[in-house]
Amino acid sequence: MNIAVAQSGGPTVAINASLLGVFKEALRVSEIEKIYGSVNGIEGVIKGNLVDLKSVLVTNEDMDLLAQTPSTALGSCRYKLPEESQNPEVYKTITECFENNDIKAFFYIGGNDSMDTVNKLSKYFKSINKDIKVIGVPKTIDNDLCETDHTPGFGSAAKYLATTLQEITRDSLVYDLKSVTVVEIMGRHAGWLAASSCLLHANGESAPHLIYLPECPFTVEGFLKDVENQLKEHNSVIVAISEGITLAKPEQAEVHQADGFGHVALSGIGKQLEKIISDELKVKCRSIELNVMQRCSSHLASLTDINEAMEIGSAAVKAALSGETGKMMAFRRVLDTPYTIKIVSVDADKVANNERFFPSEWINDEQNNVKDEALAYFLPLIKGEPTIKTNNGLPVHFKIGNILK
Amino acid sequence: MNIAVAQSGGPTVAINASLLGVFKEALRVSEIEKIYGSVNGIEGVIKGNLVDLKSVLVTNEDMDLLAQTPSTALGSCRYKLPEESQNPEVYKTITECFENNDIKAFFYIGGNDSMDTVNKLSKYFKSINKDIKVIGVPKTIDNDLCETDHTPGFGSAAKYLATTLQEITRDSLVYDLKSVTVVEIMGRHAGWLAASSCLLHANGESAPHLIYLPECPFTVEGFLKDVENQLKEHNSVIVAISEGITLAKPEQAEVHQADGFGHVALSGIGKQLEKIISDELKVKCRSIELNVMQRCSSHLASLTDINEAMEIGSAAVKAALSGETGKMMAFRRVLDTPYTIKIVSVDADKVANNERFFPSEWINDEQNNVKDEALAYFLPLIKGEPTIKTNNGLPVHFKIGNILK
Repeated sequence: MNIAVAQSGGPTVAINASLLGVFKEALRVSEIEKIYGSVNGIEGVIKGNLVDLKSVLVTNEDMDLLAQTPSTALGSCRYKLPEESQNPEVYKTITECFENNDIKAFFYIGGNDSMDTVNKLSKYFKSINKDIKVIGVPKTIDNDLCETDHTPGFGSAAKYLATTLQEITRDSLVYDLKSVTVVEIMGRHAGWLAASSCLLHANGESAPHLIYLPECPFTVEGFLKDVENQLKEHNSVIVAISEGITLAKPEQAEVHQADGFGHVALSGIGKQLEKIISDELKVKCRSIELNVMQRCSSHLASLTDINEAMEIGSAAVKAALSGETGKMMAFRRVLDTPYTIKIVSVDADKVANNERFFPSEWINDEQNNVKDEALAYFLPLIKGEPTIKTNNGLPVHFKIGNILK
Repeated sequence: MNIAVAQSGGPTVAINASLLGVFKEALRVSEIEKIYGSVNGIEGVIKGNLVDLKSVLVTNEDMDLLAQTPSTALGSCRYKLPEESQNPEVYKTITECFENNDIKAFFYIGGNDSMDTVNKLSKYFKSINKDIKVIGVPKTIDNDLCETDHTPGFGSAAKYLATTLQEITRDSLVYDLKSVTVVEIMGRHAGWLAASSCLLHANGESAPHLIYLPECPFTVEGFLKDVENQLKEHNSVIVAISEGITLAKPEQAEVHQADGFGHVALSGIGKQLEKIISDELKVKCRSIELNVMQRCSSHLASLTDINEAMEIGSAAVKAALSGETGKMMAFRRVLDTPYTIKIVSVDADKVANNERFFPSEWINDEQNNVKDEALAYFLPLIKGEPTIKTNNGLPVHFKIGNILK
């Protein structure tokens, strides 16, 4: 028998580690002959664009380099699998690809949209009595998947954010004048990543002085008042703001093209607030958009995150072999200290097209910062630094042939 | 006798290493009693805001942490010292501060504006027969100081840029569609930092496919043609563009407030080109502004840069003790391989208010990329990674008391 694995949705620093986890676990299983990688997510299955991973991941060094390479080595997609009733053909195409290649298990590493695909495909295979297991492996820097303590990719994004924000804080303090720095942070409609900026407080920083999450109402008036209050205490005020915050007039926001799931890429709130602060408070203001660096800065990966991403990929293979399907692998936290998690499987349909938000009990009464209670949750996730192999002073990235160019 | 040291201009990752170099060298000299740090550059001397550095830099760990802390531990300023004829008072104030504190040598770590201060002060002290030495220590991520092979701070900025650009390149390749990513890079009117993005070519990346420097003429028409040509060969085209590029209609550029030297902060060319590409070529385009992270990402410092920054600070103290004044310490490159530099002193007035540009012989004929010949210059500067002390998964920063808040 053979298996196939694919990566989907927005890239992270840990998604290749999960690919490696699936690959290494499958290597251990003598019944598994070929381990196929599907290029550009499920689209590779539809188009028959599969890579024999054993032929490209040959040495231990190949595997080490894959684990330290950001983004998706197999490419990704934003393809939304339609309902079978709407497009039975695509289901037949996928089934044919799996049957022609003797693929008995498919592992889909992705977010809640990918879990929609896992759910639909597994139900379809059951309905036509095909013994093809479909298991989801979570990933997203947004940390907004239901049914799991956290998602692979999030810890590294939080480590990048906190490290960078601490450096921005130093940078913002150099001149003897009042200033405001607004840092715009990814996370879509969930505030997890923006909230993780509170990690600086664990190291004695007063910054970020203000944290705004999409889980709370936001008004320009309240924001300006908060900033004014902070400027009384601090020369340099650091504001962490989630990209998911929208101003009262949404037409002011820059709107980028929507992806296959109808998601609109969010950005622009930082720039808007920079202008508002400069105009209204007449104080020096700079906005910083951390952009894709939040999801691709593998040189700042969390060792905990990379190790867990591998383990959950490995657990997915074990689950499929033990007969599970239509499941997503998930983390359960047993203890904060010493940090202890276990990996379980949950129904993919509970995760599909769903979102998990930052808990209100960890938000302060003024709804403009995060309570210290959240630190016990965040701190273990950013722990440890992988050893990075470099060449010419730069990290070495692993590329699978010429499939992405 | 006592000495004083100050930091000026825009922050870098290596400017605290130079401060440490001055401090450690001065510790070795028995005649030097107090080592004063002037808070916020020369403004601290004018306001009498001095810190006794021996009282705050006490342990070896303090010194190690200072070297890994970005930005200016003593604060900075953009103060332009007027001509003596215009404001004799300020010269008297500075002289009084030095005399009252028995300061016989002043070390100013900064860029070409700071060398203007070094030049003016040293000439003034000579003219009034005061034996106070004034020595400049170079720093700038822009690498645009005359009379030196390169500047401390630049190597780390180039390492940050190349590492991050390589990660952005991976990120940009995930989807099976044509796209353009425009990365806006600091450097003011000199293209050194943008040009250093060619470091990716040393590791076999085709990106950046286009590099635009302020040293070359730039037209939107030529740019669009270049991008179209690259899109024929590559799914994902990466463009590195210097912030110093201006479009034909300069009023389109976002103009921020000018600093004390009349410099205008540049930014916005990336966003402008993103819109032009989307409109004209109808292709997915993202612009990324690397912003202050280019100058403050000490977690990605170049070990070569940090070590050289310390050495050149140390050399400044030796130069003053041997009787030099009105000088800036500078690097001369003896060999590319094995990389060998020596430190010399040059007249500060040759550096003051001057700029050094990227050599035209390293720019390709089409003026849209950098030749491989430049790699021998850049590669040694990004070599090596310092060991970073962390706490709670984040680098530890050193703060001098409560002087910056």
